[in-house]
Amino acid sequence: MRMEYVHGYSAEEGTRLTDQAATLTELLHADTRYPPGSQVLEAGCGIGAQTVILAGNSPRATFTSVDVSAESLAEAERQVLEAGITNVSFRQADIFDLPYVSAHFDHVFVCFVLEHLPNPAGALAALMRVLKPGGSITVIEGDHGSAYFHPDSEHARRAIQCLVDLQRQAGGDSLIGRRLYPLLVQAGYRDVTVSPRMVYADATRPALVDGFTRKTFTAMVEGVGERAVGQGLMDEASWAAGIRDLHRAAEDDGTFCYTFFKAVGLR
Amino acid sequence: MRMEYVHGYSAEEGTRLTDQAATLTELLHADTRYPPGSQVLEAGCGIGAQTVILAGNSPRATFTSVDVSAESLAEAERQVLEAGITNVSFRQADIFDLPYVSAHFDHVFVCFVLEHLPNPAGALAALMRVLKPGGSITVIEGDHGSAYFHPDSEHARRAIQCLVDLQRQAGGDSLIGRRLYPLLVQAGYRDVTVSPRMVYADATRPALVDGFTRKTFTAMVEGVGERAVGQGLMDEASWAAGIRDLHRAAEDDGTFCYTFFKAVGLR
Repeated sequence: MRMEYVHGYSAEEGTRLTDQAATLTELLHADTRYPPGSQVLEAGCGIGAQTVILAGNSPRATFTSVDVSAESLAEAERQVLEAGITNVSFRQADIFDLPYVSAHFDHVFVCFVLEHLPNPAGALAALMRVLKPGGSITVIEGDHGSAYFHPDSEHARRAIQCLVDLQRQAGGDSLIGRRLYPLLVQAGYRDVTVSPRMVYADATRPALVDGFTRKTFTAMVEGVGERAVGQGLMDEASWAAGIRDLHRAAEDDGTFCYTFFKAVGLR
Repeated sequence: MRMEYVHGYSAEEGTRLTDQAATLTELLHADTRYPPGSQVLEAGCGIGAQTVILAGNSPRATFTSVDVSAESLAEAERQVLEAGITNVSFRQADIFDLPYVSAHFDHVFVCFVLEHLPNPAGALAALMRVLKPGGSITVIEGDHGSAYFHPDSEHARRAIQCLVDLQRQAGGDSLIGRRLYPLLVQAGYRDVTVSPRMVYADATRPALVDGFTRKTFTAMVEGVGERAVGQGLMDEASWAAGIRDLHRAAEDDGTFCYTFFKAVGLR
């Protein structure tokens, strides 16, 4: 999942929005800090949305961020440069065929990647190979089945289910958050701990409502509308009702819940 | 929801189970402490499961616990006596027709009650009447739509939906957790804050798996099996598969998630 935060329209609003975007970043990343001198692999960095936070939080660790897409890497490099971050190097690579000797890295970090892979267990095994004994892996994933809201709406629930179905068609699993524990254990990691990170948005947290409920989650569902309707998963009117009802949950008397899962294990 | 904790089979096991039951109690109750001398109304105390914790956590406050059922009150009184708690008095009363003058209480506490009422908004208004200006109301409720698990199972999801449907037939709303915020705001409470309290159970928390996943949540679903099948909401084989799949989520590679909501508002 890619987070899209709304930008403020006034200085005061801007500060508040930044604070609440920071809340979500804190929620997911605050407890990931790597010791000075450690070598960390970020596997599947995409356009660098997490790279900036990750490397910024551990300025004296050295990060190697890899991705299969050269285009994404170019954007990630631009973002890191713009943020003035200097402890990251980038390399084009496939998680399943990493160009590193065994036990090369002190730690591995994977965020919003496994959900897209047909074989997440294989990816975790491939990452274990390049991790030093005693080193840690940290995995963060969402779980679209954790989304619920008020007012409840069958149309909205069906629209979210379309997203889950389409991601499954593409070989991914958007319900992966809840199964991080068995995935890591079965891949052979030890001392696996999983902690859910729940986002709850109501009118007392207006920027979270706007930045997360509307502009992250609902926007993501809206993004598959053409495919969902085109494939006949939902008819156009029901789809529109589903999207309208997700926006309805972002009104003053609505609420929205979503949970991310963070797992840490040791080789 | 009534919590049923498993009892230990050995001293060591017993201690661990008590610790994890304590974890759940902490999760829900730890941040509710009333000042010495304050008068607190517990509305809908049932058999006193929460009364013992509530009054034990604020030993110098004075509690009045009311319930419509004389039978439940007798059991609550027995429990409180057994726990050696002396700061609670009991009275048979209807939340919608409380035998107290306006602004009688400093604080009001309601736990696992609104979910059963056809008119929770009316109950919140009736409770506001007996609350002093500036006094607080604390509401704790579950939300059965917040339950999800690995391995995912349509049968299990449908079995949970039967519980939701049957509670709705009886005039209740077992998805009430997510709507505490608008309910309290619309009833006229101010400074309303809601915080979700998520329970996540995997094999690293065996007593939570046993005490919550199996013996609280799954047992509660199992409890409506006869009615669900009897009313034709599910056929017997599908129901059995649903219950089997909920137990499956309590195995070593399973996970289970559920969220309680705690709301606090001021008159």
